[in-house]
Amino acid sequence: MPTDIEIARQATLIPITEVAKNAGVPDDALIPYGKYKAKVDTAALPTTANGKLILVTAINPTPAGEGKTTTSVGLSDALHRIGKKALLCLREPSLGPCFGVKGGGAGGGKSQVMPMDEINLHFTGDFHAITSAHNLLSAMIDNHIYWGNSLDLDLRRVTWRRVIDMNDRALRQIVGPLGGVSNGFPRETGFDITVASEIMAILCLAADLEDLEKRLGDIIIGYRRDKTPVFCRDVKAERAMAVLLKDAILPNLVQTLENRPAFLHGGPFANIAHGCNSVIATKTALRMADYVVTEAGFGADLGAEKFMDIKCRLAGLKPDAVVLVATVRALKMNGGVSKADLTKGENVEAVRKGAVNLKRHIENLKKFGITPTIAINHFYLDTDAELAVIKEMAESFGAEAVICKHWAEGGAGAEELARIVAAKADAGAPDFNQLYPSEMKLADKIETICTEIYRAGSVTIPAGVRSQLKQWEDMGYGHLPICMAKTQYSFSTDPTALGAPENHDVAIREVRLSAGAGFVVAIAGEIMTMPGLPKVPSAEAIYLDENGQIEGLF
Amino acid sequence: MPTDIEIARQATLIPITEVAKNAGVPDDALIPYGKYKAKVDTAALPTTANGKLILVTAINPTPAGEGKTTTSVGLSDALHRIGKKALLCLREPSLGPCFGVKGGGAGGGKSQVMPMDEINLHFTGDFHAITSAHNLLSAMIDNHIYWGNSLDLDLRRVTWRRVIDMNDRALRQIVGPLGGVSNGFPRETGFDITVASEIMAILCLAADLEDLEKRLGDIIIGYRRDKTPVFCRDVKAERAMAVLLKDAILPNLVQTLENRPAFLHGGPFANIAHGCNSVIATKTALRMADYVVTEAGFGADLGAEKFMDIKCRLAGLKPDAVVLVATVRALKMNGGVSKADLTKGENVEAVRKGAVNLKRHIENLKKFGITPTIAINHFYLDTDAELAVIKEMAESFGAEAVICKHWAEGGAGAEELARIVAAKADAGAPDFNQLYPSEMKLADKIETICTEIYRAGSVTIPAGVRSQLKQWEDMGYGHLPICMAKTQYSFSTDPTALGAPENHDVAIREVRLSAGAGFVVAIAGEIMTMPGLPKVPSAEAIYLDENGQIEGLF
Repeated sequence: MPTDIEIARQATLIPITEVAKNAGVPDDALIPYGKYKAKVDTAALPTTANGKLILVTAINPTPAGEGKTTTSVGLSDALHRIGKKALLCLREPSLGPCFGVKGGGAGGGKSQVMPMDEINLHFTGDFHAITSAHNLLSAMIDNHIYWGNSLDLDLRRVTWRRVIDMNDRALRQIVGPLGGVSNGFPRETGFDITVASEIMAILCLAADLEDLEKRLGDIIIGYRRDKTPVFCRDVKAERAMAVLLKDAILPNLVQTLENRPAFLHGGPFANIAHGCNSVIATKTALRMADYVVTEAGFGADLGAEKFMDIKCRLAGLKPDAVVLVATVRALKMNGGVSKADLTKGENVEAVRKGAVNLKRHIENLKKFGITPTIAINHFYLDTDAELAVIKEMAESFGAEAVICKHWAEGGAGAEELARIVAAKADAGAPDFNQLYPSEMKLADKIETICTEIYRAGSVTIPAGVRSQLKQWEDMGYGHLPICMAKTQYSFSTDPTALGAPENHDVAIREVRLSAGAGFVVAIAGEIMTMPGLPKVPSAEAIYLDENGQIEGLF
Repeated sequence: MPTDIEIARQATLIPITEVAKNAGVPDDALIPYGKYKAKVDTAALPTTANGKLILVTAINPTPAGEGKTTTSVGLSDALHRIGKKALLCLREPSLGPCFGVKGGGAGGGKSQVMPMDEINLHFTGDFHAITSAHNLLSAMIDNHIYWGNSLDLDLRRVTWRRVIDMNDRALRQIVGPLGGVSNGFPRETGFDITVASEIMAILCLAADLEDLEKRLGDIIIGYRRDKTPVFCRDVKAERAMAVLLKDAILPNLVQTLENRPAFLHGGPFANIAHGCNSVIATKTALRMADYVVTEAGFGADLGAEKFMDIKCRLAGLKPDAVVLVATVRALKMNGGVSKADLTKGENVEAVRKGAVNLKRHIENLKKFGITPTIAINHFYLDTDAELAVIKEMAESFGAEAVICKHWAEGGAGAEELARIVAAKADAGAPDFNQLYPSEMKLADKIETICTEIYRAGSVTIPAGVRSQLKQWEDMGYGHLPICMAKTQYSFSTDPTALGAPENHDVAIREVRLSAGAGFVVAIAGEIMTMPGLPKVPSAEAIYLDENGQIEGLF
């Protein structure tokens, strides 16, 4: 069986100018970055959006892999194959983690997005621009303090840190500036990885450059001794930051292995942020294509919920159809099988047992007024009996299920899925609704998500957190949606509780206000915003071979 | 009188594909970055270099401005006008400083390189790539220590810091990692600005990707307790770093206001590094054009000396002609006139007095076996008598001088200069020699530069510095050239001593080994490798207007 990278290397890419032409991008709207990447000037495109929006989400992720991105690629390619005009919208990957563990890539098998190596390295520089904009604000804050601190920022309460697109645990917590008068006033601070920057979330939620600049200005950089907030616009940084982001805000066009167009744009963390590609890419795609396939990070409990309650709410979007990806292997693990035991032959009972996870996600999605189509992402070891039991159970939960072979066959393996999903998208989702109204109190929103989606029996919100939420409501932030940061492996906050746990307690440890992005982060558990490198980082094995081809990146 | 930015905005750019075609770059060697920038795949170009190399240098810089880049642009445009096939090679500017003081741009008046705003912002991402490669190594060093420090690095002697392309004084000196076991071992460290990275110097001196990777591996990252060095290759970082730099190593093609080709590639500091554009750009240009115009940072005492003794020595290059730029205003300041008094009418005596600076540079350049042509960069307030005295004095020093009006007239204003310089370049510089042989002892090299070029009466090299130099000689670094870091405003180490000071003392405070780049830095005076922002940073006034045009950047 060929590896992803072997398949990718056998692919024949067409020039990005051709991809663009096929996607209806006029010549003067294309800004090429090399031969196979481009940015698209959205101003030059049709203004009317007629496309149907299809969200691809998944059951809870397991080490077995569920193939959400792969399915998104396969579905988009399949829509083209059955004669539909489709456009794929995905997140762009982060550079830093590529040097930690072998990884990267977008999709897998015959359903990948190209060119993998460039996408995983500097791509079109979006993340570098976000890093620059973030750190310009950081520099201007310390510079403001240095020159007299007329805004009266409390040095202990500067919440804006710095970012770097590198797994560098040594920067998590530092003290600086040291070295005396000419360097500034020492304080505790640190670095997060770039994808955790609020600017990443802002870029992905902004309607346009003007809205981006407004949101940048809305960022809270810290507080005074009296706990009143100090904003980015108070240090006059937001306009220069927008200048740094003027190209980054434009969607990036690449192609699938079948030479179909794909936007890869933005990549916010799926825990402390909402984990979806940019609103601008999605809305631009809806102006260009009849069907737009997009995905949301993690499983449906986190990803789809945030897609509906944050992205759709803030951007005025709604999904016309939802695809829920499941695999035999992931359901087996949800049914109690260890990763090592996955290769030990047929186990219909485990699949049946693990399908409670699938059932729960179907029920949850129905709460948003949408019944998902189940895409069973086929793996070569799956048996007919195992596949049949998923189909049967999905149907018993009221959802249609389709076996898809896009990993092995590309778009040809997902044509049935494409036909079903296109029909559902055409019918639309007239009953779509968000889980909670914007007017609901912040604490109530948190409780609603925990009880309705996670099926918690109780939600512990400490008094300090409640008073913080109350304070933000008093400041005018009560209408914001909640961005839950918890483990993606379980409905509960215990990553080992697979299947469909219920009546557990969700303890909210901390809340953070992303005033620029426009959501309140509620943290249940430990959240890491700066990864480290492993003992043997994959960087040690990444190199250019004698032909200038990158080895070891995937 | 229109400003640089007004002139730039009236320019009509041609597509970079056309610029490339005119420069003889085959289609498949062009890697476009938007419509007006591209990288050039050097492998696809002719392998024989027949071009003549013309160095543009200058008298000591003053706040009046001498116009070295402007003259380089004007000369290149003028060469085209007189029917010569020319190619301009300049450094690319750094992003961070644009947010400190109003600045940026490349050239001025009708002799500028375009598109200014993109060149000054992210350009083609080279500096971001260098930042990433540098910080990957930093992360791998702390990661190595975290996982057991089997190389036995002395935490007090880790010399490799981190970089960021931002003026951020708060990062000059920090302590980290803090936060306990999971973050690592606390130590003192800090950040420099990206242009000060040894990787910038390496990229600009590397012959090709293979040589780049070797040089990266040669970087000394720190020392053990026994003072033996630990190298980049010991933490196995150099190959992944080369992967991050695989596009950055390719020259960037842009155009002048007259739509003539220009390479902008690399931008090392001119104090702790050699301050020249990349060897790859220069050598590629010599394969493409008959005349290659390039410049070196600061005045001829630093810039030209480093160009000859570092860049030419390490790359096997030699200049065929040298242009030395002087202005009436700069000579007046060297003659004792304050900046405020420059507008107070004709002052022939001051010009005559300040011409000792010009004389000294001419004498110095003759020591390299080359008599420079003096380009008098005309300013509209200059009087005929003032201009005449420069011409007269230059000639008395044995050098031909030409009045050039390229600021006001573009290439048309530098045609006489072009004709003279082309003829000199055709004749070549058979007597070219470096100032000192590679075999000379390191301390003797330092003394040679100080006495021969700076005309120091004495050179103070403390015993500790001498023993450090001796140690490096024992380690096999004795053949390296010296990179002097001192003030650019004077031949001496006193920035206020204009004109032609002599018999002063040059005190060497510190030496640093850039083993990857391949030179020994000798520091005389305070050298700042991380600038700060002023009280009112220019960032506060940089914004996008309603048409998406950047205001306030220049």
